[in-house]
Amino acid sequence: MSELETEKIEVTENFKERGLVAKIRQPRKRRPSTDARHEDKRLLILTTAAELFSTLGYEATSLDLIAEHVGIHKATLYHYISNKESILLECLQLSFKDLDVLIEEMHNKKVCVFERLIKFASSLAIAQNNVFGRCMLLVGARPLDVYSSDEIRKFQRRLDLTVRALIEEGIADGKIRPCSPRIISSMLFGALNWVPRWYKEDSKITISEITDTFMDTMINGLRA
Amino acid sequence: MSELETEKIEVTENFKERGLVAKIRQPRKRRPSTDARHEDKRLLILTTAAELFSTLGYEATSLDLIAEHVGIHKATLYHYISNKESILLECLQLSFKDLDVLIEEMHNKKVCVFERLIKFASSLAIAQNNVFGRCMLLVGARPLDVYSSDEIRKFQRRLDLTVRALIEEGIADGKIRPCSPRIISSMLFGALNWVPRWYKEDSKITISEITDTFMDTMINGLRA
Repeated sequence: MSELETEKIEVTENFKERGLVAKIRQPRKRRPSTDARHEDKRLLILTTAAELFSTLGYEATSLDLIAEHVGIHKATLYHYISNKESILLECLQLSFKDLDVLIEEMHNKKVCVFERLIKFASSLAIAQNNVFGRCMLLVGARPLDVYSSDEIRKFQRRLDLTVRALIEEGIADGKIRPCSPRIISSMLFGALNWVPRWYKEDSKITISEITDTFMDTMINGLRA
Repeated sequence: MSELETEKIEVTENFKERGLVAKIRQPRKRRPSTDARHEDKRLLILTTAAELFSTLGYEATSLDLIAEHVGIHKATLYHYISNKESILLECLQLSFKDLDVLIEEMHNKKVCVFERLIKFASSLAIAQNNVFGRCMLLVGARPLDVYSSDEIRKFQRRLDLTVRALIEEGIADGKIRPCSPRIISSMLFGALNWVPRWYKEDSKITISEITDTFMDTMINGLRA
Protein backbone atom coordinates (compact mmCIF):
# COMPACT_ATOMS: atom_id res chain seq x y z
CA MET A 1 0.00 0.00 0.00
CA SER A 2 1.49 3.38 -0.96
CA GLU A 3 2.06 6.07 1.66
CA LEU A 4 -0.65 8.18 0.13
CA GLU A 5 -3.16 5.35 0.36
CA THR A 6 -2.34 4.90 4.02
CA GLU A 7 -2.89 8.60 4.59
CA LYS A 8 -6.17 8.57 2.73
CA ILE A 9 -7.46 5.81 4.96
CA GLU A 10 -6.30 7.67 8.05
CA VAL A 11 -8.09 10.79 6.88
CA THR A 12 -11.30 8.84 6.31
CA GLU A 13 -11.05 7.35 9.77
CA ASN A 14 -10.44 10.75 11.30
CA PHE A 15 -13.55 12.03 9.62
CA LYS A 16 -15.46 8.97 10.86
CA GLU A 17 -14.44 9.80 14.41
CA ARG A 18 -15.91 13.27 13.96
CA GLY A 19 -19.11 12.00 12.38
CA LEU A 20 -18.18 13.68 9.13
CA VAL A 21 -18.13 10.50 7.11
CA ALA A 22 -21.51 11.18 5.57
CA LYS A 23 -20.01 14.22 3.86
CA ILE A 24 -17.35 12.14 2.14
CA ARG A 25 -18.14 10.55 -1.15
CA GLN A 26 -16.97 6.99 -1.27
CA PRO A 27 -14.21 6.62 -3.85
CA ARG A 28 -15.42 4.87 -6.98
CA LYS A 29 -14.24 1.31 -7.56
CA ARG A 30 -11.25 1.46 -9.85
CA ARG A 31 -9.17 -1.12 -11.66
CA PRO A 32 -5.83 -1.54 -9.80
CA SER A 33 -3.94 -0.31 -12.89
CA THR A 34 -5.50 3.13 -12.55
CA ASP A 35 -4.71 3.49 -8.84
CA ALA A 36 -1.27 5.04 -9.23
CA ARG A 37 -2.55 7.61 -11.71
CA HIS A 38 -5.47 8.37 -9.44
CA GLU A 39 -3.15 8.96 -6.48
CA ASP A 40 -0.82 11.13 -8.56
CA LYS A 41 -3.76 13.32 -9.51
CA ARG A 42 -4.99 13.43 -5.91
CA LEU A 43 -1.56 14.59 -4.77
CA LEU A 44 -1.50 17.20 -7.55
CA ILE A 45 -4.87 18.50 -6.35
CA LEU A 46 -3.70 18.69 -2.73
CA THR A 47 -0.42 20.38 -3.70
CA THR A 48 -2.20 22.91 -5.90
CA ALA A 49 -4.77 23.62 -3.20
CA ALA A 50 -2.09 24.04 -0.52
CA GLU A 51 -0.25 26.53 -2.72
CA LEU A 52 -3.42 28.50 -3.45
CA PHE A 53 -4.48 28.50 0.23
CA SER A 54 -1.05 29.83 1.23
CA THR A 55 -0.93 32.49 -1.46
CA LEU A 56 -4.52 33.74 -1.63
CA GLY A 57 -5.87 32.63 1.73
CA TYR A 58 -8.35 29.83 2.46
CA GLU A 59 -11.52 31.90 2.01
CA ALA A 60 -10.42 33.33 -1.33
CA THR A 61 -9.64 29.88 -2.78
CA SER A 62 -12.70 28.23 -4.29
CA LEU A 63 -13.00 24.65 -5.54
CA ASP A 64 -13.51 26.17 -9.01
CA LEU A 65 -10.14 27.88 -8.75
CA ILE A 66 -8.41 24.70 -7.58
CA ALA A 67 -9.94 22.74 -10.48
CA GLU A 68 -8.91 25.47 -12.93
CA HIS A 69 -5.29 25.44 -11.69
CA VAL A 70 -5.13 21.63 -11.83
CA GLY A 71 -6.59 21.79 -15.33
CA ILE A 72 -9.66 19.65 -14.69
CA HIS A 73 -13.40 20.27 -14.51
CA LYS A 74 -14.86 20.97 -11.08
CA ALA A 75 -17.12 17.91 -11.41
CA THR A 76 -14.03 15.76 -11.94
CA LEU A 77 -12.52 17.17 -8.73
CA TYR A 78 -15.17 15.30 -6.75
CA HIS A 79 -13.73 11.97 -7.95
CA TYR A 80 -10.71 12.80 -5.79
CA ILE A 81 -11.88 14.92 -2.89
CA SER A 82 -15.16 15.60 -1.13
CA ASN A 83 -15.06 19.27 -0.14
CA LYS A 84 -12.77 22.22 0.64
CA GLU A 85 -12.55 21.44 4.36
CA SER A 86 -11.36 17.89 3.70
CA ILE A 87 -8.67 19.23 1.31
CA LEU A 88 -7.34 21.56 3.99
CA LEU A 89 -7.46 18.81 6.61
CA GLU A 90 -5.42 16.52 4.36
CA CYS A 91 -2.92 19.28 3.60
CA LEU A 92 -2.44 19.90 7.33
CA GLN A 93 -2.07 16.17 8.00
CA LEU A 94 0.51 15.88 5.23
CA SER A 95 2.46 18.73 6.85
CA PHE A 96 3.10 16.41 9.82
CA LYS A 97 4.35 13.57 7.61
CA ASP A 98 7.59 12.06 8.98
CA LEU A 99 7.49 14.19 12.13
CA ASP A 100 6.40 11.20 14.26
CA VAL A 101 9.75 9.59 13.46
CA LEU A 102 11.55 12.82 14.41
CA ILE A 103 9.74 13.02 17.75
CA GLU A 104 10.75 9.41 18.45
CA GLU A 105 14.41 10.22 17.72
CA MET A 106 14.32 12.96 20.33
CA HIS A 107 13.99 10.32 23.09
CA ASN A 108 17.41 8.84 22.30
CA LYS A 109 19.48 10.01 25.26
CA LYS A 110 22.66 8.54 23.75
CA VAL A 111 22.74 11.62 21.52
CA CYS A 112 23.74 14.95 23.16
CA VAL A 113 20.71 17.11 23.95
CA PHE A 114 22.09 20.01 21.88
CA GLU A 115 22.57 17.76 18.85
CA ARG A 116 19.01 16.54 19.23
CA LEU A 117 17.70 20.12 19.44
CA ILE A 118 19.60 21.00 16.26
CA LYS A 119 18.25 17.90 14.48
CA PHE A 120 14.72 18.76 15.62
CA ALA A 121 14.89 22.37 14.46
CA SER A 122 16.51 21.62 11.10
CA SER A 123 14.08 18.79 10.26
CA LEU A 124 11.08 20.82 11.37
CA ALA A 125 12.24 23.83 9.32
CA ILE A 126 12.43 21.67 6.18
CA ALA A 127 8.94 20.27 6.81
CA GLN A 128 7.54 23.74 7.54
CA ASN A 129 8.82 25.21 4.31
CA ASN A 130 7.48 22.65 1.89
CA VAL A 131 4.11 23.21 0.26
CA PHE A 132 2.09 21.54 3.03
CA GLY A 133 4.13 23.01 5.90
CA ARG A 134 3.60 26.50 4.50
CA CYS A 135 -0.13 25.81 4.31
CA MET A 136 -0.08 24.71 7.96
CA LEU A 137 1.64 27.91 9.08
CA LEU A 138 0.03 30.43 6.75
CA VAL A 139 -3.53 29.07 6.88
CA GLY A 140 -3.62 26.84 9.95
CA ALA A 141 -6.50 24.90 11.41
CA ARG A 142 -8.83 27.84 12.13
CA PRO A 143 -11.05 27.25 9.05
CA LEU A 144 -11.66 23.73 10.41
CA ASP A 145 -12.63 24.93 13.89
CA VAL A 146 -16.27 24.28 13.21
CA TYR A 147 -15.46 20.57 12.59
CA SER A 148 -13.07 20.53 15.55
CA SER A 149 -9.41 20.62 14.68
CA ASP A 150 -8.26 18.78 17.79
CA GLU A 151 -6.06 16.40 15.84
CA ILE A 152 -3.96 19.28 14.46
CA ARG A 153 -3.75 21.04 17.83
CA LYS A 154 -2.75 17.79 19.55
CA PHE A 155 0.13 17.29 17.13
CA GLN A 156 1.35 20.85 17.64
CA ARG A 157 1.19 20.26 21.38
CA ARG A 158 3.30 17.09 20.97
CA LEU A 159 5.95 19.09 19.10
CA ASP A 160 5.98 21.72 21.86
CA LEU A 161 6.23 19.09 24.62
CA THR A 162 9.12 17.43 22.78
CA VAL A 163 11.17 20.63 22.88
CA ARG A 164 10.21 21.36 26.49
CA ALA A 165 11.35 17.85 27.49
CA LEU A 166 14.72 18.40 25.77
CA ILE A 167 15.23 21.69 27.62
CA GLU A 168 14.21 20.09 30.94
CA GLU A 169 16.62 17.22 30.31
CA GLY A 170 19.43 19.68 29.53
CA ILE A 171 18.74 21.66 32.73
CA ALA A 172 18.66 18.45 34.80
CA ASP A 173 21.99 17.36 33.27
CA GLY A 174 23.56 20.75 33.99
CA LYS A 175 24.14 21.41 30.29
CA ILE A 176 21.51 24.13 30.02
CA ARG A 177 21.36 26.96 32.53
CA PRO A 178 18.13 27.27 34.54
CA CYS A 179 15.34 28.79 32.43
CA SER A 180 11.66 28.30 31.61
CA PRO A 181 11.35 25.38 29.15
CA ARG A 182 7.92 26.70 28.18
CA ILE A 183 9.24 30.14 27.17
CA ILE A 184 12.32 28.73 25.42
CA SER A 185 10.16 26.30 23.46
CA SER A 186 7.88 29.17 22.39
CA MET A 187 10.94 31.18 21.35
CA LEU A 188 12.18 28.37 19.11
CA PHE A 189 8.75 27.69 17.58
CA GLY A 190 8.13 31.41 17.09
CA ALA A 191 11.40 31.84 15.22
CA LEU A 192 10.83 28.72 13.09
CA ASN A 193 7.11 29.22 12.49
CA TRP A 194 7.74 32.74 11.23
CA VAL A 195 10.14 31.67 8.48
CA PRO A 196 7.47 30.78 5.87
CA ARG A 197 6.14 34.35 6.24
CA TRP A 198 9.32 36.04 5.16
CA TYR A 199 11.51 33.46 3.42
CA LYS A 200 11.56 33.28 -0.37
CA GLU A 201 13.05 30.26 -2.12
CA ASP A 202 14.89 32.44 -4.62
CA SER A 203 16.61 34.39 -1.84
CA LYS A 204 20.35 34.25 -1.28
CA ILE A 205 20.07 32.34 1.98
CA THR A 206 18.96 28.75 2.48
CA ILE A 207 16.66 27.22 5.08
CA SER A 208 19.64 25.38 6.53
CA GLU A 209 21.61 28.64 6.97
CA ILE A 210 18.62 30.11 8.79
CA THR A 211 18.27 27.12 11.11
CA ASP A 212 22.03 26.99 11.75
CA THR A 213 22.05 30.65 12.81
CA PHE A 214 18.96 30.22 15.01
CA MET A 215 20.37 27.17 16.76
CA ASP A 216 23.87 28.55 17.06
CA THR A 217 22.55 31.66 18.82
CA MET A 218 20.06 29.75 20.94
CA ILE A 219 22.38 26.99 22.11
CA ASN A 220 25.13 29.49 22.83
CA GLY A 221 22.60 31.43 24.86
CA LEU A 222 21.29 28.39 26.74
CA ARG A 223 24.59 26.66 27.51
CA ALA A 224 25.31 26.48 31.24
CA MET B 1 -6.28 68.18 19.31
CA SER B 2 -6.58 64.73 20.91
CA GLU B 3 -4.37 61.86 19.77
CA LEU B 4 -7.34 60.09 18.32
CA GLU B 5 -8.31 63.11 16.27
CA THR B 6 -4.79 63.32 14.88
CA GLU B 7 -4.97 59.67 13.94
CA LYS B 8 -8.33 60.07 12.29
CA ILE B 9 -6.94 62.82 10.11
CA GLU B 10 -3.93 60.70 9.23
CA VAL B 11 -6.19 57.82 8.27
CA THR B 12 -8.28 60.09 6.07
CA GLU B 13 -5.15 61.40 4.40
CA ASN B 14 -3.85 57.91 3.84
CA PHE B 15 -7.09 57.00 2.18
CA LYS B 16 -6.85 60.16 0.07
CA GLU B 17 -3.43 59.07 -1.12
CA ARG B 18 -4.93 55.78 -2.25
CA GLY B 19 -7.87 57.41 -3.95
CA LEU B 20 -10.20 55.78 -1.46
CA VAL B 21 -11.54 59.01 -0.11
CA ALA B 22 -14.76 58.76 -2.08
CA LYS B 23 -15.61 55.66 -0.07
CA ILE B 24 -15.37 57.53 3.21
CA ARG B 25 -18.39 59.35 4.50
CA GLN B 26 -17.51 62.80 5.67
CA PRO B 27 -18.02 63.03 9.44
CA ARG B 28 -21.13 65.01 10.31
CA LYS B 29 -20.67 68.48 11.77
CA ARG B 30 -20.91 68.17 15.51
CA ARG B 31 -21.04 70.66 18.38
CA PRO B 32 -17.62 70.72 20.12
CA SER B 33 -19.19 69.47 23.35
CA THR B 34 -20.08 66.17 21.75
CA ASP B 35 -16.61 65.56 20.29
CA ALA B 36 -15.14 63.75 23.28
CA ARG B 37 -18.13 61.42 23.50
CA HIS B 38 -17.96 60.80 19.77
CA GLU B 39 -14.27 59.87 19.99
CA ASP B 40 -14.87 57.61 22.98
CA LYS B 41 -17.50 55.73 21.02
CA ARG B 42 -15.24 55.54 17.96
CA LEU B 43 -12.48 54.04 20.08
CA LEU B 44 -14.95 51.58 21.60
CA ILE B 45 -15.99 50.52 18.09
CA LEU B 46 -12.37 50.06 17.00
CA THR B 47 -11.46 48.13 20.16
CA THR B 48 -14.50 45.88 19.85
CA ALA B 49 -13.78 45.26 16.17
CA ALA B 50 -10.11 44.48 16.84
CA GLU B 51 -11.11 41.93 19.48
CA LEU B 52 -13.64 40.29 17.20
CA PHE B 53 -11.23 40.21 14.24
CA SER B 54 -8.58 38.54 16.44
CA THR B 55 -10.97 36.01 17.94
CA LEU B 56 -13.23 35.09 15.03
CA GLY B 57 -11.14 36.15 12.05
CA TYR B 58 -11.67 39.11 9.74
CA GLU B 59 -14.00 37.36 7.29
CA ALA B 60 -16.26 35.98 10.02
CA THR B 61 -16.72 39.42 11.63
CA SER B 62 -19.54 41.41 10.05
CA LEU B 63 -20.42 45.05 10.67
CA ASP B 64 -23.68 43.75 12.15
CA LEU B 65 -21.74 41.74 14.70
CA ILE B 66 -19.53 44.70 15.59
CA ALA B 67 -22.60 46.91 16.08
CA GLU B 68 -24.27 44.23 18.20
CA HIS B 69 -21.21 43.88 20.46
CA VAL B 70 -20.90 47.66 20.84
CA GLY B 71 -24.62 47.81 21.62
CA ILE B 72 -25.64 50.17 18.83
CA HIS B 73 -27.64 49.86 15.63
CA LYS B 74 -25.70 49.13 12.43
CA ALA B 75 -26.97 52.39 10.92
CA THR B 76 -25.47 54.30 13.86
CA LEU B 77 -22.13 52.61 13.21
CA TYR B 78 -21.83 54.61 9.98
CA HIS B 79 -21.69 57.85 11.99
CA TYR B 80 -18.31 56.67 13.21
CA ILE B 81 -16.75 54.52 10.51
CA SER B 82 -17.19 54.05 6.79
CA ASN B 83 -16.65 50.34 6.16
CA LYS B 84 -14.98 47.18 7.46
CA GLU B 85 -11.73 47.75 5.58
CA SER B 86 -11.29 51.22 7.09
CA ILE B 87 -11.87 49.76 10.59
CA LEU B 88 -9.13 47.20 10.06
CA LEU B 89 -6.79 49.82 8.61
CA GLU B 90 -7.30 52.04 11.66
CA CYS B 91 -6.77 49.10 14.04
CA LEU B 92 -3.47 48.27 12.28
CA GLN B 93 -2.39 51.92 12.37
CA LEU B 94 -3.21 52.11 16.09
CA SER B 95 -1.02 49.03 16.66
CA PHE B 96 1.98 51.15 15.61
CA LYS B 97 1.11 53.96 18.01
CA ASP B 98 4.18 55.12 19.97
CA LEU B 99 6.54 52.87 18.00
CA ASP B 100 7.94 55.83 16.04
CA VAL B 101 9.30 57.17 19.32
CA LEU B 102 10.81 53.76 20.11
CA ILE B 103 12.53 53.58 16.71
CA GLU B 104 13.98 57.04 17.32
CA GLU B 105 15.37 55.95 20.71
CA MET B 106 17.24 53.12 19.03
CA HIS B 107 19.54 55.64 17.32
CA ASN B 108 20.93 56.85 20.64
CA LYS B 109 24.42 55.38 20.62
CA LYS B 110 25.08 56.62 24.15
CA VAL B 111 23.04 53.65 25.35
CA CYS B 112 24.68 50.18 25.10
CA VAL B 113 23.44 48.25 22.05
CA PHE B 114 22.25 45.33 24.22
CA GLU B 115 20.23 47.67 26.44
CA ARG B 116 18.64 49.19 23.35
CA LEU B 117 17.79 45.73 21.99
CA ILE B 118 16.15 44.85 25.32
CA LYS B 119 14.20 48.10 25.35
CA PHE B 120 13.08 47.53 21.77
CA ALA B 121 11.90 43.97 22.41
CA SER B 122 10.12 44.72 25.67
CA SER B 123 8.31 47.78 24.28
CA LEU B 124 7.35 45.98 21.08
CA ALA B 125 6.06 42.99 23.07
CA ILE B 126 3.78 45.25 25.11
CA ALA B 127 2.45 46.92 21.94
CA GLN B 128 1.96 43.56 20.23
CA ASN B 129 -0.10 42.12 23.04
CA ASN B 130 -2.63 44.91 23.43
CA VAL B 131 -5.92 44.72 21.55
CA PHE B 132 -4.61 46.43 18.38
CA GLY B 133 -1.24 44.65 18.39
CA ARG B 134 -2.98 41.28 18.56
CA CYS B 135 -5.18 42.32 15.64
CA MET B 136 -2.04 43.24 13.67
CA LEU B 137 -0.44 39.85 14.31
CA LEU B 138 -3.49 37.58 14.18
CA VAL B 139 -5.26 39.24 11.24
CA GLY B 140 -2.58 41.34 9.53
CA ALA B 141 -2.84 43.45 6.42
CA ARG B 142 -3.81 40.69 3.97
CA PRO B 143 -7.54 41.63 3.92
CA LEU B 144 -6.44 45.10 2.80
CA ASP B 145 -4.24 43.83 -0.02
CA VAL B 146 -6.80 44.83 -2.60
CA TYR B 147 -6.53 48.46 -1.42
CA SER B 148 -2.77 48.20 -1.16
CA SER B 149 -1.42 47.82 2.36
CA ASP B 150 1.94 49.41 1.62
CA GLU B 151 1.81 51.68 4.64
CA ILE B 152 1.57 48.69 7.02
CA ARG B 153 4.33 46.76 5.21
CA LYS B 154 6.57 49.83 5.21
CA PHE B 155 6.24 50.19 8.96
CA GLN B 156 7.03 46.51 9.52
CA ARG B 157 10.08 46.95 7.31
CA ARG B 158 11.20 49.93 9.41
CA LEU B 159 10.98 47.80 12.55
CA ASP B 160 13.04 45.06 10.89
CA LEU B 161 15.68 47.51 9.66
CA THR B 162 15.93 49.01 13.15
CA VAL B 163 16.88 45.63 14.64
CA ARG B 164 19.26 44.84 11.77
CA ALA B 165 21.02 48.17 12.32
CA LEU B 166 21.45 47.42 16.03
CA ILE B 167 22.98 44.01 15.25
CA GLU B 168 25.26 45.54 12.60
CA GLU B 169 26.34 48.22 15.08
CA GLY B 170 27.09 45.54 17.71
CA ILE B 171 29.16 43.51 15.24
CA ALA B 172 31.10 46.61 14.14
CA ASP B 173 31.80 47.47 17.80
CA GLY B 174 32.99 43.94 18.52
CA LYS B 175 30.20 43.40 21.08
CA ILE B 176 28.27 40.93 18.93
CA ARG B 177 29.99 38.02 17.26
CA PRO B 178 29.80 37.90 13.45
CA CYS B 179 26.38 36.72 12.29
CA SER B 180 23.69 37.55 9.74
CA PRO B 181 21.73 40.60 11.03
CA ARG B 182 18.90 39.64 8.68
CA ILE B 183 18.52 36.15 10.20
CA ILE B 184 18.93 37.35 13.79
CA SER B 185 16.30 40.04 13.23
CA SER B 186 13.89 37.44 11.82
CA MET B 187 14.60 35.22 14.85
CA LEU B 188 13.68 38.01 17.26
CA PHE B 189 10.56 39.06 15.33
CA GLY B 190 9.47 35.44 14.94
CA ALA B 191 9.75 34.80 18.67
CA LEU B 192 7.94 38.07 19.55
CA ASN B 193 5.33 37.92 16.80
CA TRP B 194 4.33 34.42 17.87
CA VAL B 195 3.50 35.39 21.46
CA PRO B 196 -0.07 36.63 20.79
CA ARG B 197 -0.81 33.19 19.31
CA TRP B 198 -0.07 31.26 22.48
CA TYR B 199 -0.05 33.72 25.37
CA LYS B 200 -3.11 34.09 27.57
CA GLU B 201 -3.45 37.04 29.93
CA ASP B 202 -4.65 34.83 32.75
CA SER B 203 -1.58 32.59 32.51
CA LYS B 204 1.00 32.40 35.28
CA ILE B 205 3.68 34.17 33.27
CA THR B 206 3.78 37.81 32.25
CA ILE B 207 4.77 39.42 28.95
CA SER B 208 7.80 40.92 30.67
CA GLU B 209 8.99 37.48 31.89
CA ILE B 210 8.67 36.19 28.33
CA THR B 211 10.65 39.09 26.86
CA ASP B 212 13.30 38.87 29.59
CA THR B 213 13.86 35.17 28.85
CA PHE B 214 13.97 35.77 25.08
CA MET B 215 16.47 38.60 25.39
CA ASP B 216 18.57 36.92 28.04
CA THR B 217 19.00 33.86 25.81
CA MET B 218 19.49 35.87 22.66
CA ILE B 219 22.01 38.37 24.00
CA ASN B 220 23.93 35.61 25.76
CA GLY B 221 24.01 33.80 22.43
CA LEU B 222 25.09 36.84 20.44
CA ARG B 223 27.72 38.25 22.78
CA ALA B 224 31.22 38.19 21.27
